[in-house]
Amino acid sequence: MVSTETGHAVGICVIMAGGRGTRFWPLSRMERPKQLLPLAGERSLLRDTCDRVVSLVGPERVLVITAAGLVEAVRSELPELPPTNIVGEPRGCNTAPCAVLGMGLAARLDPAAPVALLPADHHIPDSDIFVRQLGRSFARAADRRTVVTLGIRPDRPETGYGYIQVAATADGEGFHRGEAFVEKPDLATAEQYVAGGRHYWNGGIFVWNPGWFADMASRHLVDVSARMAAPIASFGTESFAVALEEAYASCPAESIDYAVMEKLSEFEVLPAAFGWTDLGSWDAWGALAPALVAGNRGTGDVLAVAAKDNIVLVQDKLVALVGVEDLVIVDTTDALLVCRRADAQKIKDVITRLEGDGRRDLL
Amino acid sequence: MVSTETGHAVGICVIMAGGRGTRFWPLSRMERPKQLLPLAGERSLLRDTCDRVVSLVGPERVLVITAAGLVEAVRSELPELPPTNIVGEPRGCNTAPCAVLGMGLAARLDPAAPVALLPADHHIPDSDIFVRQLGRSFARAADRRTVVTLGIRPDRPETGYGYIQVAATADGEGFHRGEAFVEKPDLATAEQYVAGGRHYWNGGIFVWNPGWFADMASRHLVDVSARMAAPIASFGTESFAVALEEAYASCPAESIDYAVMEKLSEFEVLPAAFGWTDLGSWDAWGALAPALVAGNRGTGDVLAVAAKDNIVLVQDKLVALVGVEDLVIVDTTDALLVCRRADAQKIKDVITRLEGDGRRDLL
Repeated sequence: MVSTETGHAVGICVIMAGGRGTRFWPLSRMERPKQLLPLAGERSLLRDTCDRVVSLVGPERVLVITAAGLVEAVRSELPELPPTNIVGEPRGCNTAPCAVLGMGLAARLDPAAPVALLPADHHIPDSDIFVRQLGRSFARAADRRTVVTLGIRPDRPETGYGYIQVAATADGEGFHRGEAFVEKPDLATAEQYVAGGRHYWNGGIFVWNPGWFADMASRHLVDVSARMAAPIASFGTESFAVALEEAYASCPAESIDYAVMEKLSEFEVLPAAFGWTDLGSWDAWGALAPALVAGNRGTGDVLAVAAKDNIVLVQDKLVALVGVEDLVIVDTTDALLVCRRADAQKIKDVITRLEGDGRRDLL
Repeated sequence: MVSTETGHAVGICVIMAGGRGTRFWPLSRMERPKQLLPLAGERSLLRDTCDRVVSLVGPERVLVITAAGLVEAVRSELPELPPTNIVGEPRGCNTAPCAVLGMGLAARLDPAAPVALLPADHHIPDSDIFVRQLGRSFARAADRRTVVTLGIRPDRPETGYGYIQVAATADGEGFHRGEAFVEKPDLATAEQYVAGGRHYWNGGIFVWNPGWFADMASRHLVDVSARMAAPIASFGTESFAVALEEAYASCPAESIDYAVMEKLSEFEVLPAAFGWTDLGSWDAWGALAPALVAGNRGTGDVLAVAAKDNIVLVQDKLVALVGVEDLVIVDTTDALLVCRRADAQKIKDVITRLEGDGRRDLL
């Protein structure tokens, strides 16, 4: 275990950046997915995520696992990282292979370091607080066989997230004993969770003691671990790419949540003191976007006549809204989306249709 | 009076092409107004209008009165017309000065010829029938002091048009005695008109006996006639442009409908046997436009998911409609309109706002 001058354990951060973010179509595309878009400010979500963790552990100790087709784009986006720290999965295999690979590569960099697994595409405005809490989680996971997750305090009965149930009282350092990971609840259950105060949203940020992860993986992810052994062993050598290709060719697609997290008898939860949003939809984007006239939100040159509560993202042209409300309007050079806000989840049907029609240029 | 070999009087046609057609914004602009747009096919409405009348009277006997700023565009659009036959009004002055000027210039070409005054921006799919009926109207107005209007049989109780009331029975040639021009009615009245069968829409197509028009103008448009005398007298000379400028500088803005038509004791109505639409709105355009999936209409690469009855005009990009209905969506390079169909008349408020904001580039 390595320690900083401030006494914090120096962890390693594995950013999981493989998502497509189809819910942000037509702005997001396969070659420019959500994490590479400046959805919350002027820089990409990945760029912001990387900055947060680099400030804590330095660029050499940040790994990014992304899709093979995005490796070059990610390397351009994060030029301060060693290029070999950015690894492309040859195909999407859900989250368990990504986690096992990331943990394994982290161990090659520093076998004793605690490791944070975190998403690339969430928005965390309070960077300093996040960094402090991540540092405390590293310290916690450095010397005990545990995993710490940063729990997000729910401000609404969201039914689209998984929840984490915790013990009512925290220990002296503010960590709660985790009791259970709970799948997406129905509305009534979610309302109870919010009222009860003992449930947090699962924001997907986990800080592992490396030995404990290895134990869990060898127990619950036998197949995946066996397949990832070769690329992990060859990391940094010329045979890495081929080994990775072979490992993914036959790797089962499993979720780390189902395979490991939900089976954990013990884990710890540190309630997040920072603001957080997963920016899961155009609606969520609209909530963060600049306010325009009449409850319309977004960016663009908008002229509204009897039009309210629309979310607009249009560049280089005027948008005249007349008599419309509760729409999402997103214009790009080759595609225009006009969607009822309540139907935003159906954007996935657009993607499916485009795939079926072989229109790869629009995906 | 000149006659063709078929026995028809050869009239003169004055196309009134000064309108802005703001209801087709953002496609229509001051420099590319409705009549210059291909709203019903591949050619502009003006081009179609000119073709119809040229086939009857020849290009030398067609005059176009348009806005000064559009003269060059119209000359390019109608290259077979003598350039001097295309005249630009220095400013918009409602319809009476345009009519007086047009009739006066027609008299300079052929003082005895009957003259048709007609709009540039209506869509008439049955060209042959229109041409035949216009020819019959010329013959009628050639040798009697009358004005013939082509009445459009109403197929719905439209409250946006003026109506013409006629005597119940036609004469042996199919002409009805006109009884009254009626202003835009309320819905109940319009329904009575449609049910009664004695009312036609005023489509703005009038065929005048030239002497009769001169009488009417000298009686009801004293001021306008006095001011237009100089440009009419100088038509074809170098001083025409200056005379026209001076005439319009002080000319009162009057409507030919109010000043003359509604005061006529006698006029004749020939019920139109051709299809007609004034293409007065995006809705009217949508009714003519190609059918897309699910009741959506228009032109463009449209992908609809749970979206119906929208009117779309978008080029060079995909439009994904998700969960929306009854919208008008028109995209251009510098402006995008998203408008509820029921609020299409509010597009004028967009124009007003753009004018107020000094955004001439978008007008």
